[in-house]
Amino acid sequence: MADAITSTTNARVKEIVSLRKRRERDRTGTFIIEGVRELERATDAKIELIEVFSCDDLASPVARTFLSTLDSTSMSEKAFAKCSYRDRSDGVIAIARQFDTALGSFHPPPDAVLLTLEAIEKPGNLGTMMRTALAAGAAGVICADPATDVFNPNVVRASLGAVFAVPLAVTDTTTAIEWLTGNGFGIYSTTPAGDVEPWSVDFASGAAVVVGSESSGLSLPWLDGASALVRIPMAERADSINAAMAAGVMLFEAARQRAKT
Amino acid sequence: MADAITSTTNARVKEIVSLRKRRERDRTGTFIIEGVRELERATDAKIELIEVFSCDDLASPVARTFLSTLDSTSMSEKAFAKCSYRDRSDGVIAIARQFDTALGSFHPPPDAVLLTLEAIEKPGNLGTMMRTALAAGAAGVICADPATDVFNPNVVRASLGAVFAVPLAVTDTTTAIEWLTGNGFGIYSTTPAGDVEPWSVDFASGAAVVVGSESSGLSLPWLDGASALVRIPMAERADSINAAMAAGVMLFEAARQRAKT
Repeated sequence: MADAITSTTNARVKEIVSLRKRRERDRTGTFIIEGVRELERATDAKIELIEVFSCDDLASPVARTFLSTLDSTSMSEKAFAKCSYRDRSDGVIAIARQFDTALGSFHPPPDAVLLTLEAIEKPGNLGTMMRTALAAGAAGVICADPATDVFNPNVVRASLGAVFAVPLAVTDTTTAIEWLTGNGFGIYSTTPAGDVEPWSVDFASGAAVVVGSESSGLSLPWLDGASALVRIPMAERADSINAAMAAGVMLFEAARQRAKT
Repeated sequence: MADAITSTTNARVKEIVSLRKRRERDRTGTFIIEGVRELERATDAKIELIEVFSCDDLASPVARTFLSTLDSTSMSEKAFAKCSYRDRSDGVIAIARQFDTALGSFHPPPDAVLLTLEAIEKPGNLGTMMRTALAAGAAGVICADPATDVFNPNVVRASLGAVFAVPLAVTDTTTAIEWLTGNGFGIYSTTPAGDVEPWSVDFASGAAVVVGSESSGLSLPWLDGASALVRIPMAERADSINAAMAAGVMLFEAARQRAKT
């Protein structure tokens, strides 16, 4: 076991902090995971943890149990506080190897429901959508032209680790549409300009629920290539719901239909 | 029209900044509203704007049109930046009078769907829930024992002004349950311990969808007093969805049932 890290200028501390930047994540092929729940999900999914760091003064009982199962490097509270990106930390953070998100490695069942996202900008939204996709029983999430990468620490946090539990593929819009069409998935693009209600979609066979970016919605190829354009009906005075909520309404409608059969 | 405010230590600037604190909002009975969309919703709802402030250098074309309809006090970019609590501002902010949220003034139709929230902690969640309630056609939102007040600037922001468009009542849990029961509303409490699926609830008559706090869910009175305990079904490996998502799934299920009739 390595010596305890006590300095906030320690090289490992600097490395962890640097991984909040996408450029550094892309360059090193690594990312950070904080929190016991997230780390448990990561180890369940066989994500490679390069180094785990712990802070005795902050570790919750659950964290202590988790830490007893693997090697970790001890940190002083001051050094750990520099690394932590949470409001309330449970005293565990790790550097992990980025996992494979190639579409070629993505093999959901042909009758699955998938969530497909175009250019989601806010890490919190992307994480919430992954958590919701997992809960609603979606078999995978396709991120087309992501504006925020799936290894962003706030994606990991907002997903509560669902980012490790739900199969993910990262690609571009053209490739995603070709793949979905080629694999027999219906493309249900959500848009205020849609003409079909969520409950009029037949989710019995393979279906991709498609949701666009917070600021500009779906691009033209997703509208042109859709099996149906779906509009979530709004009350008269309302103008919109957020993108994560739209994904949730669609995915749980699919879950409802499938639970009935 | 008052002289332009150019100093960041101006008394009005300090007042606006102080209203980010609940204590100051409670003491003065005022709150702040930033953004054209939010201010338009506020004026539509006859919220009293005590003073409107504008920054010419930041004002969007939409903001200029809005500002042409009322008196405003001009601010320098530096002074305005001190007041603004947004990432991207459209150059308009106002001090407004808190509106009536007494249960005695809350008169939804007896067959309405209501959203009822207990002790929601995060302003972003509370705002998202109000936006979703408005979109899904709920006739009002009851906030029982709120941990964050509805006049928090981040509630206003996350709601995109829905906080002004959807009727609101703030009260305590005991009074809320008495009121709902006395007015013939079914109480559908969402909990992981529930035994009914959202789509097995009959939303044809007056119904309150009840969602609890992010950290601890619903308190015992909401479980004991419920017409049914509703569990949003989750896939095996998932453990939860966030509170706002739970509210959205329930409210849009009610909307689905009501659209069919």
